[in-house]
Amino acid sequence: MSYHALSQHFEQLHHLQHLGAICGWDQATMMPSGGNEARAEALGTLAVLCHQQLQDPRLADWFADAEQESSAREHKVSLAEMRRQWRDATLLPADLVRAMSLAGSRCEHAWRSLRPANDWAGYLPLFEEVLNLSRQVASARAETLGLSRYDSLLEQYEPGMRSARLDTLFGGLKSWLPELITQVQNKQRNEPMLQPQGPFAIEQQRALGLEVMTLLGFDFNHGRLDVSAHPFCGGVSEDVRLTTRYNEQDVAQALMGIIHETGHARYEQGLPAQWRRLPVGQARSMGVHESQSLFFEMQLARHPAFIARLTPLLERHFGAQPAFAPDNMARLYTRVSPGLIRVDADEVTYPAHIMLRYEIERDLIEGRMEARDLPERWDQLMQTYLGLSTKGNYKDGCLQDIHWTDGSFGYFPSYTLGSIYASQQAAAMQQQQRSLEQLIDNNLSSVFEWLQQHIWQHASLLETDTLIQQACGQSLDATAFKHHLQQRYLG
Amino acid sequence: MSYHALSQHFEQLHHLQHLGAICGWDQATMMPSGGNEARAEALGTLAVLCHQQLQDPRLADWFADAEQESSAREHKVSLAEMRRQWRDATLLPADLVRAMSLAGSRCEHAWRSLRPANDWAGYLPLFEEVLNLSRQVASARAETLGLSRYDSLLEQYEPGMRSARLDTLFGGLKSWLPELITQVQNKQRNEPMLQPQGPFAIEQQRALGLEVMTLLGFDFNHGRLDVSAHPFCGGVSEDVRLTTRYNEQDVAQALMGIIHETGHARYEQGLPAQWRRLPVGQARSMGVHESQSLFFEMQLARHPAFIARLTPLLERHFGAQPAFAPDNMARLYTRVSPGLIRVDADEVTYPAHIMLRYEIERDLIEGRMEARDLPERWDQLMQTYLGLSTKGNYKDGCLQDIHWTDGSFGYFPSYTLGSIYASQQAAAMQQQQRSLEQLIDNNLSSVFEWLQQHIWQHASLLETDTLIQQACGQSLDATAFKHHLQQRYLG
Repeated sequence: MSYHALSQHFEQLHHLQHLGAICGWDQATMMPSGGNEARAEALGTLAVLCHQQLQDPRLADWFADAEQESSAREHKVSLAEMRRQWRDATLLPADLVRAMSLAGSRCEHAWRSLRPANDWAGYLPLFEEVLNLSRQVASARAETLGLSRYDSLLEQYEPGMRSARLDTLFGGLKSWLPELITQVQNKQRNEPMLQPQGPFAIEQQRALGLEVMTLLGFDFNHGRLDVSAHPFCGGVSEDVRLTTRYNEQDVAQALMGIIHETGHARYEQGLPAQWRRLPVGQARSMGVHESQSLFFEMQLARHPAFIARLTPLLERHFGAQPAFAPDNMARLYTRVSPGLIRVDADEVTYPAHIMLRYEIERDLIEGRMEARDLPERWDQLMQTYLGLSTKGNYKDGCLQDIHWTDGSFGYFPSYTLGSIYASQQAAAMQQQQRSLEQLIDNNLSSVFEWLQQHIWQHASLLETDTLIQQACGQSLDATAFKHHLQQRYLG
Repeated sequence: MSYHALSQHFEQLHHLQHLGAICGWDQATMMPSGGNEARAEALGTLAVLCHQQLQDPRLADWFADAEQESSAREHKVSLAEMRRQWRDATLLPADLVRAMSLAGSRCEHAWRSLRPANDWAGYLPLFEEVLNLSRQVASARAETLGLSRYDSLLEQYEPGMRSARLDTLFGGLKSWLPELITQVQNKQRNEPMLQPQGPFAIEQQRALGLEVMTLLGFDFNHGRLDVSAHPFCGGVSEDVRLTTRYNEQDVAQALMGIIHETGHARYEQGLPAQWRRLPVGQARSMGVHESQSLFFEMQLARHPAFIARLTPLLERHFGAQPAFAPDNMARLYTRVSPGLIRVDADEVTYPAHIMLRYEIERDLIEGRMEARDLPERWDQLMQTYLGLSTKGNYKDGCLQDIHWTDGSFGYFPSYTLGSIYASQQAAAMQQQQRSLEQLIDNNLSSVFEWLQQHIWQHASLLETDTLIQQACGQSLDATAFKHHLQQRYLG
């Protein structure tokens, strides 16, 4: 009975979050700008309501009773996931939640104009406020959860992950990645490469995107593709809303973005229907989510066999040109080039951007570093990892990301965890079935069935380590990632 | 203090309704059909929450205290409008609300397939259930409000309106309208008329629609135009969402629909900003709302001077053709032809469709007629008012409207009240300023300024009679409507 009451309560919460997700999508894709103030107010009221829903005083009793009555394993796991959301919503004092939300909005809003103006001095006091409150949040969480301060933030995005484990993992990467980057650059230096010549009409790019989504098994009865300034995958699992943005001069940007978001979308669409309205039916973690988008974008779409399938589509939509030749497209899509901007980084240099951010955010939260020291530390680590300087260039350095502006510390590692999990999944899939080349040439559906069976259908019913262990025969391990990069870029 | 608490409470409710309005719009325009079940659940949860918000036990005390403390007239009116919503939400027993909602959904859902199948026998038991519950609702409302049963339902859509007054009003119409219809038909019988030759590309129809919306002062910073199966005006006043549907063979259908909805939209966009989040800041009544859409569609858009402005736009989008000549278009747009379907009816025969429905719904609710007698009564009144038979033709007779399927009895009179109010407004505007012909030829903004000043800015701050009296120098009166029809159709 109490489990039932809890389920109903969390289903209600899920319904409210559904409305928030659709109205958030609308805000980014459809809403005229004059509607923004009213929308922000309405979504603010919803956020308060959702928070109240989690602070309902009846929950404590229901949880206590449900622990006694529930015996099925799935119910126990479901209960644990509800408890996790409840705990996260109740362990912070309301004043701190409000202060954090206000400081985060203020800093993020200011960042939108301070970044293009390269104005570090204007940003610093706002960021110091966010950091100060984030440290308080981390302390409060750490105390309740029995974790270090940084780990308590990491836990929000990647349950079970600890910085000690990340230190080992990233330590391993650092032992071989810089050398690999150098080798790849040497190898690629003299490779001929043609840039496709635009313009590429946006209507055609959209038609191509829809075709590729269909090829990738996206279910258009439960989702759609639209345009927003910052691409995302939103909506709900019954109705997944992807967005992209088009550049008339660059056909790869929107296409690869769409493929990336389609990976997120298929995970959402593949979550088990019977659990969808409860926390246990949600995606396992941000790292696992990112593993699906990166599986689609990196393992699949940048594979020579997949690129060979793209060429006729490109030719059909934009006419033939020499640059569309599969071997040229493969070279374009796997070009390695250290740069300043994370979101523009290639597959090989991307982890360097993440390790840099991880080290800095960990030290900021643990109090081993102060906000004012950020630009110098950033420049120093960029020199170490990628041989580039950001001295005085804040906008392409420590001001480039939105994450820290509202206090989302602990999120960055998800990206590289995603790359590593994706490589492990690709390796296991190929070991258990056939090579990706054969799977792509023959029938992509075997790829999706494997992901459905090993990742999507498990939602949050398994812990991440168990999920990856059962799917890949080993938990988190960067060996497959290293082999993947060596094979693709040096093989 | 209590007024402040009430305001905050109703603002919260308004924010929830905002999310519901946007998600409802999305459901009709954007959502893939596979998302419907989850959306219906989410909107259902929201409806329950909104209802709970109005049943908050603190409201009674706040209202009692606020009556004492509030002195400003506007606060008193605002309080009265909040009280009206509160009363409506609390005067029905929860069981009845739930039963009504279920029976209404069931009947409406079945109606969608029973109507095309002309299946009256299948519809009758479902409709009997809805009628039975609607009578219970009417009785409960009647007892609390001290009104007759039908008047208690009318009060939901047209506060202050009573059936005794409608009887007089419609009695007046009946004394001259049938004769007028005959005269107009005789006059029009030999008029030459060319039908525009399609197809009219949908992209061009949309571009034309946007142009006409701009001409009519629609604010695209606070709204947009999309497509849905059943056109409506939704969203919130800061972000009004219009919809239309396009027919490749008929350019008038979408265009006139867009103009109609633009009238609704400008009322919404013109509501006073400082009251928008409270009940007093909402549109006055459905009749007044309909008066704005009909002012735009009938008084303005079917005026020869306006049609003359449309011709060059039509020619620019679709090329010139003889049918686009202003005098031909004017004849097309003012063709009078008694027909079976209300939504296809012209301006002159439309009131007959409404009077028929009014008489039937009043008698159904007052218990003077039973559901099973509906087809016969319908046929008999259609014969009387328009000389047409619907015997055995349920789908074009008593099954044609959605309104009664979910128990929306009392709504229909709003349409004809709207026609009459619109004529009164047009007459007063022309008396106070210049002829509509001159206003259209010179500057439409004088028209919109008049409506803003006399209708839109007053939201629900005035009772309908006062609003119309102040705007037009007299309250509800069909004389101007009669003059308008005589002048336009026989002049």
